[in-house]
Amino acid sequence: MRRWNGWGDETIDVEMNADALGFLEARIGPGQAPTDASFEQACAAIRASRLSPHPLVDTNTSVRALHALGQSLPDWLRLRHGRLGAVPDGVAFPESADQVRALLAYAAANGAAVVPYGGGTSVAGHLTASLDQPTLCIALTRLRAMRNLDTESQLASFGAGVTGPDLEAQLRAHGYTLGHFPQSFEYSTLGGWVVTRSSGQQSLRYGRIEQLFAGGRVETPAGTLDIPTFPASAAGTDLRELVLGSEGRLGILVDATVRVTKLPDYEAFHAVFFPDWDSAQRAVRTLAQARLPLSMLRLSNAVETQTMLALAGHKRLVGVLEKWLRLRGCGEGKCMLLVGASGNKGQARAALRAAFAIARGERGVHIGKGLGERWRHNRFRNVYLRNAAWRQGYAIDTVETALDWPGVNGAMAAIEAAAAQALGEHGERVHAYTHLSHLYPQGASVYSTFVYRLAGDYETDLARWRSLKSAVSEAIVASGGTISHQHGVGADHAPWLEAEKGHLGLEAMRALFNRFDPDGRMNPGKLVLP
Amino acid sequence: MRRWNGWGDETIDVEMNADALGFLEARIGPGQAPTDASFEQACAAIRASRLSPHPLVDTNTSVRALHALGQSLPDWLRLRHGRLGAVPDGVAFPESADQVRALLAYAAANGAAVVPYGGGTSVAGHLTASLDQPTLCIALTRLRAMRNLDTESQLASFGAGVTGPDLEAQLRAHGYTLGHFPQSFEYSTLGGWVVTRSSGQQSLRYGRIEQLFAGGRVETPAGTLDIPTFPASAAGTDLRELVLGSEGRLGILVDATVRVTKLPDYEAFHAVFFPDWDSAQRAVRTLAQARLPLSMLRLSNAVETQTMLALAGHKRLVGVLEKWLRLRGCGEGKCMLLVGASGNKGQARAALRAAFAIARGERGVHIGKGLGERWRHNRFRNVYLRNAAWRQGYAIDTVETALDWPGVNGAMAAIEAAAAQALGEHGERVHAYTHLSHLYPQGASVYSTFVYRLAGDYETDLARWRSLKSAVSEAIVASGGTISHQHGVGADHAPWLEAEKGHLGLEAMRALFNRFDPDGRMNPGKLVLP
Repeated sequence: MRRWNGWGDETIDVEMNADALGFLEARIGPGQAPTDASFEQACAAIRASRLSPHPLVDTNTSVRALHALGQSLPDWLRLRHGRLGAVPDGVAFPESADQVRALLAYAAANGAAVVPYGGGTSVAGHLTASLDQPTLCIALTRLRAMRNLDTESQLASFGAGVTGPDLEAQLRAHGYTLGHFPQSFEYSTLGGWVVTRSSGQQSLRYGRIEQLFAGGRVETPAGTLDIPTFPASAAGTDLRELVLGSEGRLGILVDATVRVTKLPDYEAFHAVFFPDWDSAQRAVRTLAQARLPLSMLRLSNAVETQTMLALAGHKRLVGVLEKWLRLRGCGEGKCMLLVGASGNKGQARAALRAAFAIARGERGVHIGKGLGERWRHNRFRNVYLRNAAWRQGYAIDTVETALDWPGVNGAMAAIEAAAAQALGEHGERVHAYTHLSHLYPQGASVYSTFVYRLAGDYETDLARWRSLKSAVSEAIVASGGTISHQHGVGADHAPWLEAEKGHLGLEAMRALFNRFDPDGRMNPGKLVLP
Repeated sequence: MRRWNGWGDETIDVEMNADALGFLEARIGPGQAPTDASFEQACAAIRASRLSPHPLVDTNTSVRALHALGQSLPDWLRLRHGRLGAVPDGVAFPESADQVRALLAYAAANGAAVVPYGGGTSVAGHLTASLDQPTLCIALTRLRAMRNLDTESQLASFGAGVTGPDLEAQLRAHGYTLGHFPQSFEYSTLGGWVVTRSSGQQSLRYGRIEQLFAGGRVETPAGTLDIPTFPASAAGTDLRELVLGSEGRLGILVDATVRVTKLPDYEAFHAVFFPDWDSAQRAVRTLAQARLPLSMLRLSNAVETQTMLALAGHKRLVGVLEKWLRLRGCGEGKCMLLVGASGNKGQARAALRAAFAIARGERGVHIGKGLGERWRHNRFRNVYLRNAAWRQGYAIDTVETALDWPGVNGAMAAIEAAAAQALGEHGERVHAYTHLSHLYPQGASVYSTFVYRLAGDYETDLARWRSLKSAVSEAIVASGGTISHQHGVGADHAPWLEAEKGHLGLEAMRALFNRFDPDGRMNPGKLVLP
């Protein structure tokens, strides 16, 4: 069963080992285990639904509670403290586009806002219900079947509510993969990926969801938008691009066709260490600009490298590795690069060899597949550490952006410094570390993680998060970064969107959404503020 | 000096050899050399400008005539017959964004429509002036400087009026290339490429203009839209996508930043022949789906292959080649594939070897670099054949679309048959042939050329073209293709846009353009009909 107030499945616990805990305590002080509210306590404050009865709409309190929030830190605070705030007045689980249309009409008749719900994994406040009007949550859970697989065009069509594992399983049965693996993969959905412009860990090979999304159907208050598939087109505005990143503001994506590829014959993840950040950063830029057919490049800064090695357990083995690396010039400030390649074995291995040669040019030390395979094994498990940290009294939050190369180092430093200063004003320290999660010829995404102590009461913890979020978002914008590279905007990032879109850009988005949703009932308060 | 009523520079003539002429005569009958109007005759009917005087606006008749039309066949008919019809009332050559803004204000004060003019190479009627209101043509000619080259991010910023050769020369001086080579390259402009979603001959390596356009500045009646550059972003609507394919409807792109790459160390174009279309088509699909790092795949059908060999001259050499090919199984219905690779020599040659191996699996016969290099040499000269054919009394027109793989063969057959039937109704034959100009894992572009006889009088030739254009456009839409893969929509394709966008899709485009251009003065009548 899925956890109602944390990440993932209740049967999966990833523990923090004593060494890792000691590592954190030394940096930010000992944590104090908080007390969580029970599900019953959280549900107790939920008010009666304001929606009229409808055969497709479930107004049961527990169903409404389970669809009220995502996985952002303020969402967690509301869940853990049993202070859900606004929850949807009802949740529907449509099984067809017709039912979605009927539900939109029902919402209009009820004067209700509509919040689409995919996997509930948003970390940017995409799912919050409206306080001012009744809210209907439309969960896409039951729209998950593969409708069609065209192996000639390598196109597959799915109900947009299909989750990552379900989608990959349906494709794998035919020898295909989408290759889209965000960290939320186990719960997030195809539709959610599209409307938040998601990026997977192996986007270097498979592309971002923008490149994978080929067409589909959107049900909007103004009618149905059918987007046909073409390999490419010069026919005016690309309608796919209106749906990508629309975050529910113009309608509900019910059906999506995606570009798939044959399962790779071969896949490997290797680790390379560099003596310091500057050489590592130069190496990954050269690698990205060499356009080698790799599937992943992921570079951790020195503190993240140290943290990953501390969290790995196996203290003795890590000690041996570090000693060996030190002899090869990778000591205190060393940075770890993970390099993945997938596909035809010959091509993939040639790409890896070329990558290692470039890395050697910056004194990179290739240590083989051990740590890379370990990363692969844990790629969807590391996120469970948020649960473990919470139990020890620590919050883990992340932010991410992307910038052209000249801005990358400055942004990383500014984001980490802003976090330290923001929490310093609350008398707290932060353990901040960063990796470049996606590498492009033009620049990189900068993904920072913050570990800091929970106070244990809702108001104080919300205030800490607000200070942190505001400070790092300001730092991102001031550094010239986008407010999100892969998580989307939601409610949490919306105040910083104008910095990159400009007034006129936001106005264009408003005009667009307004044409599809003249009453402004689709996911109000998200993405573009009124 | 540039030809005022045909393609290219007056000093360049590409002649049709006697064999080629005989080849055409045998197929569609002898042509009769038409009589062209002189430039003075064409200008004589131009009425006085309806615009008020402005220091930036040239109302000289000849300047207005030279900016009245593009390169579509109906544009040629108007030029050749000296029946220009509506011409702009004035032409401005702004040197800054400030001047563009001033000109937009001036147009508003004059109640004038605004037609942006790049290189005047449109083949879809993008440049036609308005009949109902005064028209100001804003030519971007003087906005052509490279403002910035950021070699760290591989980004270059240019005035949007820069032409292909000028852009490449400015980059080449620093060791970089954009790699965007549409057939119109010699005259078409960066801004034109962006707003019509252009695709270059080597887009397999460099990407379409959509992938190359990183940001820029658009001056619109509602204000300035500045689009910053990011390597990627999940922050809502991608503003670049609102500008791409906008065809002047929302404003004027004055400045564009593009993703450039280092000049390749190595570049080669090879030819491979296949015994028939089916094996050739299967081979290119396999090649595209193998995602080899090639720079070009271009497959001619049997009639195009035969035509290219006939046009090549060198009858004896072609005879030897054909004999040699026949011995290897490529006889009557043989199809020629051009394969290009660029970049690092080792990687490019490995990709070519892998490509030839795949081709062999479909009985493809690799004949080396001769014809490929010949194609490279003539890549921007073949378009001059339109002039030569005209002098012999023949029209050459083209259409193009793109489709998922299952539709490719049917569309090709339907387009060629529609052309034959349409001209048959005029008692004329057509010589129609096709190539797949751009190959994608998902499908291909289908690019058809039609050669048919000119009647020599304007009305008859316009009627022939209208029948042809309408029939092939209907065939494209009925086959499930996009109305344009690389030429854009303009006025000529606008009636068929709703077939792919749907009513709601068009309405969304209208709402978007209306927000930037509430008075509807920007390039009216193009892209989206009122």
